[in-house]
Amino acid sequence: MLRSWLDGAAGKAVINMNDETYMNFALDLAVSASGQTSPNPLVGAVIVKNNQIVGMGAHLKAGTPHAEVHAVRMAGDQAQGATAYVTLEPCSHYGRTPPCADLLIESRVDRVVVASVDPNPEVKGRGIEKLKAAGITVEVGVLKEKADKINSFFFHYMKTATPYVTLKAAATLDGKTASYTGSSKWITGERAREDVHLNRMKHDAILIGAGTAAADDPSLNVRLDHAFRQPVRIILDTSLRTSPTAKMLHDKGAPVWIICGSGADEKRKQALEAAGADIIKLQEETITIPVLLGKLGEKNIQSLYVEGGAAVHGSFLDAAAFQELHYYIAPKLIGGKTAFPVFGGRGIALMEEAAELVVESTETLGEDMKITAFPKKG
Amino acid sequence: MLRSWLDGAAGKAVINMNDETYMNFALDLAVSASGQTSPNPLVGAVIVKNNQIVGMGAHLKAGTPHAEVHAVRMAGDQAQGATAYVTLEPCSHYGRTPPCADLLIESRVDRVVVASVDPNPEVKGRGIEKLKAAGITVEVGVLKEKADKINSFFFHYMKTATPYVTLKAAATLDGKTASYTGSSKWITGERAREDVHLNRMKHDAILIGAGTAAADDPSLNVRLDHAFRQPVRIILDTSLRTSPTAKMLHDKGAPVWIICGSGADEKRKQALEAAGADIIKLQEETITIPVLLGKLGEKNIQSLYVEGGAAVHGSFLDAAAFQELHYYIAPKLIGGKTAFPVFGGRGIALMEEAAELVVESTETLGEDMKITAFPKKG
Repeated sequence: MLRSWLDGAAGKAVINMNDETYMNFALDLAVSASGQTSPNPLVGAVIVKNNQIVGMGAHLKAGTPHAEVHAVRMAGDQAQGATAYVTLEPCSHYGRTPPCADLLIESRVDRVVVASVDPNPEVKGRGIEKLKAAGITVEVGVLKEKADKINSFFFHYMKTATPYVTLKAAATLDGKTASYTGSSKWITGERAREDVHLNRMKHDAILIGAGTAAADDPSLNVRLDHAFRQPVRIILDTSLRTSPTAKMLHDKGAPVWIICGSGADEKRKQALEAAGADIIKLQEETITIPVLLGKLGEKNIQSLYVEGGAAVHGSFLDAAAFQELHYYIAPKLIGGKTAFPVFGGRGIALMEEAAELVVESTETLGEDMKITAFPKKG
Repeated sequence: MLRSWLDGAAGKAVINMNDETYMNFALDLAVSASGQTSPNPLVGAVIVKNNQIVGMGAHLKAGTPHAEVHAVRMAGDQAQGATAYVTLEPCSHYGRTPPCADLLIESRVDRVVVASVDPNPEVKGRGIEKLKAAGITVEVGVLKEKADKINSFFFHYMKTATPYVTLKAAATLDGKTASYTGSSKWITGERAREDVHLNRMKHDAILIGAGTAAADDPSLNVRLDHAFRQPVRIILDTSLRTSPTAKMLHDKGAPVWIICGSGADEKRKQALEAAGADIIKLQEETITIPVLLGKLGEKNIQSLYVEGGAAVHGSFLDAAAFQELHYYIAPKLIGGKTAFPVFGGRGIALMEEAAELVVESTETLGEDMKITAFPKKG
C-alpha cells in the first residue's frame, strides 16, 4: 500500500503533494487494518508540515488508540502549525479514549482536512464544530466517496442500526446449486472458495438456513493461514431442528447463534444450549428478515455474510434486504427443470419489478467468475 | 478490416511481410463476406510477387467465383512466379466452377501457402496433391487455427453431416427466464437483443420449441437495417399443436419448418401446410436431438441457432449436442422456487458430470453481459 503510493508519487516529474494525495495515503493507512477494527471504523491520519510528513497512524483495533493519537505522538512538537488529514471526523466524545478533537486542538495543528463526517450519533459533526470553535481551519469532504466506501459496514450500521448484508451465492452458469438428484459438490473451484473464506473473515457474522446446516453440516469457519478472526455463525432455524451434534457446535471456533420462532420447543432449546449454542428466540412465530436484522443490530453485528441456501437467499431478496451481492459463477451447465435454483423463496412476481443490480466488477478466479454488484437505487 | 491490417503494418519500423502477414490479410478478406456464402465456406486469397500484392479476392456468394479466381484475374500475367495465399485448400473438383487447383497451375504461380485443408470429402487434400504434382511448392497450416475458426460451421458440418449448434440463452443473474407468475418481458436490454438478431442472421436456421412458439408467438426474423438474409425458422412440435394462425406463418419472411413425431395428426399437418409451413414428420414418435440434427443436416442446414425455451435447451444439454453457447446475463435477480429456469429438461444427475465450459469471452452489451463459451473437450 505504502509502496504503491510512493511509486505513484515518484513517477511524476513534479510531485504535486495536494490534499488528495495526503488523504489517499491516509486512506491507505486506514485500509491496512481491514477487518481488524470492528466494531470501530477504519481510520487513517497523516500530519504534514512544510510539505513533509511528520506523523502518521491508523486505528488498528477496538480499545487501542485512534489514528490521530498515533499520528500526533509521532509528530510531537512538529504538529504545531501543521495540517492533519483524517479519513473520518475526529471524535468529540469520551469513549474508551479521550476525544481526538481535543487532542488535535492541544497539538496546535493549524488545519484539519476530513474525508467523511462520522455518522455515529454521538459525534456527527460535533468533532468538526469543536475544531472550528478552537480556531482551526477545517475542510470536509476530500475523497469522501472513497472514505465512505472503506467503511461501508460501519456507515450502514450507524445509519440503520442493522447490519450491512452481503449475499454470497455460487452457482453454475445456468443458476443452479445442485442437480435434480441433489448433487452439489463442488460448484466452484479452489480459488473461488478461498475468496469466500477471505470474505467470511471481513464480516462480523455468517448466516445460513437450517436446511443448509442439516444438509451440509458445515464448519462455517475461516480456513486461511492468515485468519485472525472467526465470525459469529448464525443459523436461521424457526423450529430448532438443528442437531445438537452439528459440527460447528463442537469446534469451539466461534460462537454459534441459532435464531428461532416463538413456538420453538423448549427441550430442543435446552439441548442446543447444552451443546454450546446461543439460542435467540424471537417474539414472532416465524422469522422475518427485518426483525432478524434489527435483532442482530442490537447485538452489535455490523456486517452479515449470507451464504444461503436458496430459501434464505430468496427471503433476503424478497425483503430487498441486502447491500451487496457476491455472485460466483462456475463455467458449467447442469440443467434440469427440478434442479435446485440458487435463489428460491417466493420470488418477484413481475420481471419489471426484478431487483436490478449495478455490477461493480467482474473478476476471474481460477476457472470461475465473480460478479460483485449492488442493488440499483430506486 | 483492411485498415486494421495496414495500420498494423505501418506501425512497425521495419515491415516484415511474411507468410503470416499475408495469410492474415487473406483471412480478413474471407471474413468480410461473413454470413453471405452459406452453404459455401468463407475463403480469401492474396497473390504476392516481389513483395507486392498483385491480386486479391474473396468468395462472396455461392454460385459466384471462388476467391482464387478473383485473385488470379486481378493478377493477370503477374501471377507467374508469384506466391498465392489461400485460407482454404483450393478445390480439386468440378462444382459450379472449374477446380481452383487447375487455375492456380495454369496461372503459373511458384508457391501456394494454404491455411486449412478442405474438410469436404470431395477435396480433402486432393487440391494440394494436384498442385504438388504440377511442381508447385505448397505449404500447409499457416494460421490454421484461425482459418478453421472462421469456418467453424462449415468444418463441423463437413465432418459430422449435422449442423453446428449455437445455444442462445438469456436469463437474470440467478438463471431465470420468467418469474413464478410467468412474467418474462424484458430480460435483457436493446443492445443484447440487437446482438441476437445479428447472430440469427449468421446461422442457416433458428430453432424454438412449440411451448415458446405458443407462448410468445414470435416472428423469429432478423430485424436489422442491414439484414441480408432471413434464416429458416424451425419449431420442434411433436404433436403439431402450433396454431396455423401463428405470426411467423404469415409474414413470408423465411420458410417455417415444423418438426413432428410419427403420431402427429394428419389434419393438423394439412392445416399447417395450408398456412405455409413445411412439416417434417420423423419416423419416431418422439423427437430426439441426434435424429433431428441428422435430418437438418440432410436438408443442408450447416448451422443452427437454438433459442429455447427451457425444455429445448435442456434437451440439447442432456444430449451434449451443442458446439457453442451464447449466454446473456441481465444484471437482476428474480428469485422464486417455482420461477422458470433457463435450462430445463431432465438435467445432469451429478455435479461432477455437469457440462463444463471454456469461456472464450465476456462482453458488456449495454447493461447486460454476454458470455461466449464452448463445451470443454473431454
